[in-house]
Amino acid sequence: MIKNMMIISMTLFCAIGYGQTKQNAKYVFLFIGDGMGASQVYTTEMYLNAKPNEIKSEKLLMNSFPVNSNMTNYSASSYVTTSCAAATAMSTGFKTNNGIIGKSPDKKIAYENISQKAKKAGFKVGILSSVMIDHATPASFYAHQDSRNMYYEISMELPNYNIDYFGGGGFHHPKGKKGDQPDSFENAIKKGYTIADSHEEFNKLKNGDEKIIAINPEKYPTGEFYWAIDKKEDALSLADFTKKGIEVIDNDKGFFMMVEGGKIDWACHGNDGVSMVHEVIAFNDAIKEAFEFYKERPDETLIIVTADHETGALTTGINYATHPELLKYQIISVQEFKRKMTELKNTDPKVSFNTILDLVQADFGLGNKDVGLSLDDKELALLKSAYNKQFKGHKKVNADADYLTKTKTKSMGETAAYILNEKAGINWGSGNHSGTPIPVRVIGKGQEEFSEYFDNTDLPKKILKLMGI
Amino acid sequence: MIKNMMIISMTLFCAIGYGQTKQNAKYVFLFIGDGMGASQVYTTEMYLNAKPNEIKSEKLLMNSFPVNSNMTNYSASSYVTTSCAAATAMSTGFKTNNGIIGKSPDKKIAYENISQKAKKAGFKVGILSSVMIDHATPASFYAHQDSRNMYYEISMELPNYNIDYFGGGGFHHPKGKKGDQPDSFENAIKKGYTIADSHEEFNKLKNGDEKIIAINPEKYPTGEFYWAIDKKEDALSLADFTKKGIEVIDNDKGFFMMVEGGKIDWACHGNDGVSMVHEVIAFNDAIKEAFEFYKERPDETLIIVTADHETGALTTGINYATHPELLKYQIISVQEFKRKMTELKNTDPKVSFNTILDLVQADFGLGNKDVGLSLDDKELALLKSAYNKQFKGHKKVNADADYLTKTKTKSMGETAAYILNEKAGINWGSGNHSGTPIPVRVIGKGQEEFSEYFDNTDLPKKILKLMGI
Repeated sequence: MIKNMMIISMTLFCAIGYGQTKQNAKYVFLFIGDGMGASQVYTTEMYLNAKPNEIKSEKLLMNSFPVNSNMTNYSASSYVTTSCAAATAMSTGFKTNNGIIGKSPDKKIAYENISQKAKKAGFKVGILSSVMIDHATPASFYAHQDSRNMYYEISMELPNYNIDYFGGGGFHHPKGKKGDQPDSFENAIKKGYTIADSHEEFNKLKNGDEKIIAINPEKYPTGEFYWAIDKKEDALSLADFTKKGIEVIDNDKGFFMMVEGGKIDWACHGNDGVSMVHEVIAFNDAIKEAFEFYKERPDETLIIVTADHETGALTTGINYATHPELLKYQIISVQEFKRKMTELKNTDPKVSFNTILDLVQADFGLGNKDVGLSLDDKELALLKSAYNKQFKGHKKVNADADYLTKTKTKSMGETAAYILNEKAGINWGSGNHSGTPIPVRVIGKGQEEFSEYFDNTDLPKKILKLMGI
Repeated sequence: MIKNMMIISMTLFCAIGYGQTKQNAKYVFLFIGDGMGASQVYTTEMYLNAKPNEIKSEKLLMNSFPVNSNMTNYSASSYVTTSCAAATAMSTGFKTNNGIIGKSPDKKIAYENISQKAKKAGFKVGILSSVMIDHATPASFYAHQDSRNMYYEISMELPNYNIDYFGGGGFHHPKGKKGDQPDSFENAIKKGYTIADSHEEFNKLKNGDEKIIAINPEKYPTGEFYWAIDKKEDALSLADFTKKGIEVIDNDKGFFMMVEGGKIDWACHGNDGVSMVHEVIAFNDAIKEAFEFYKERPDETLIIVTADHETGALTTGINYATHPELLKYQIISVQEFKRKMTELKNTDPKVSFNTILDLVQADFGLGNKDVGLSLDDKELALLKSAYNKQFKGHKKVNADADYLTKTKTKSMGETAAYILNEKAGINWGSGNHSGTPIPVRVIGKGQEEFSEYFDNTDLPKKILKLMGI
């Protein structure tokens, strides 16, 4: 009898599986670093602890999780996915064509996504991003539209699913492309949403508040957060929005929260390695907020950190001379440096090349031979060519418009970043997405379900199973 | 009383851990794909099932293993490791400088490696490679030398540890660089080794044979296997050597076997994508032999498949037009094509460009517009430039000597491979190693020990722990 009962107890334990109890994953965090491949994170790890003549890398919190696996991410139309097709796979379990949000390749079927399923099952839902909340990745967690570019339609669809908390950037064009449509903020308010877009309103948000759209007061006019590297101390971060989101939607029935680090991808499109590193750090800081929550409720919480795809075909080191410590001398984003150059051109059109070189040294360290950043003739010629284009040319320079556009001659800031990245051994293969599988880091309830090599369409299936949906 | 016993039984079960019994990992396989990063395997997966207008990838056996994690691989002297420093980390648990085999950075300490420890503990040991068995990776599993280039000293050290089975390629220069030293094969024979370097001798090898050096009868004069893509049907493969090795060293006390797919790295150094794919397939075929063994003894067997580092800064797809199906039209290695060109130059020095173009089309598909491989003016100019260099130049062309050397003007075969890889969307960032973390695939006894993000120095520690050493 005793023996029989022991066997029963062990069998029961085995059936439930390693580290699991009968309980489901009640609190689920899905962190998506847009464009964040293995090299993006590893470059950040090298950056954080790099010293001259010392090879060392510091593990980021996300890489200390007990499961660190890999996921394929091709779309229905290409081995190289776009953010929307990848996010649709991760939110619905279906592959779609590049460009489509939450719908089938023929655009005829609107797939039910994990947010809708979680809401139906009684969970609260939060969707956060450091870019506009009608941008491809967050949009794929609520909307169903033929094109990711239908930003107005996406923002109009946003309030239809009673999602509890949106946090992060604004809308692309809340009154439509021409500014002549009904305001999508007004539409959300009509449907019961509260817009919190000041520090005061943000601070007032509290547990139990429902239908919240919290928008960062400090952001670019286009709607996304400022670059983490340029962030002012008292500005709200993705971590602040995550912490507040947890506070708002925490409840006994559980929640699902998707948090996107959206500007990692943007920095990679621009091959701005140091801005990328700072975006990864800001993203990791947001993960820390979820980890604090996990520590309180480890048996009920699941945190997954992954990406939609890699951007920039980044490689950390293409020869034996890799010096990530040099990256610390860049203290501004390429975009903000571009803005500086534009302002300078408008106030002092005859600014000399030497003055520009001083500014390049101040913001990128280039030319400072004491720290190993001397410029050789070829590098000086590259900078001179950018100077001639920007200050001797005829065209007006727009600091933001061409930031992500690959032009044959790079701007002064892009050239400086290119030279610094080369010297540090951080190599960009392109300004586009790549198709390489991407890492997945997991801790918490059911973590072992993710240890295999799997496809991005399996991600929501695994999560829903663990949530008991 | 009953309750107490149940608790005891469950505690005992928990202490032993998930999927483990008290027994150790008795049969351990460590497969090292030299230069095999995530993209090398994923390109192979795309290649295997790629069809025009169909996005599909077939999982290789190694990627079907239940654990698929990631490992850092920097050396003591650089964020970008060489094979010997990485293999020293994986065999001894210590970082060393690039260039050193099995010794400390100051070359004063000879580290005890996993083969020595396994032998002392009563396990049999096998060391296999598709390149020379005194090359960096296999050498790091037995030798201790100041430089990987001390091939003669390495081959002389080889018989000192009673390793049971060496299989694969030959020695670099068994009589020293100048050919004036005592023969290292004779040295091995004196120490009790049997050299099996014909089909007949290979076939005669049987269970229980000890101190075997089995060398492929079909190999380049330099000692490595022919390229898998050029392999003749009845030639011995890495899978054959693995199968034979298992047969020879299988015993009740267990074994440790290291198998290197050495030419994956060589193909990547040469940016020859299709030859790389065939090397990965040949490597995966060797893993199949271990997997057959695992299926017979799943509770006692552990298979780990990883790499020393990535080579070539390879990205699968740098834009949305990725067409791996086009890679199937290359049916020869760049090296063998180069040999063809050399022979042609020697027999018909006035061969026309059009004749060469026909040969390029036959071996690389280039110029065949029916399969989507038309050549544009720029691509034709690249081929013409290679033709002019190879057939109109004055220098004698050596087919093998400059294969791995980056020259400004590429040879005809390198140019053809470059154009085909570009058209397929397979992008090489360099001809060197990179520092990106590399995947680790694991199945069997203690597999869950490998699911985290870890460093290559932890690999032997994990293995030895599981072997109970």
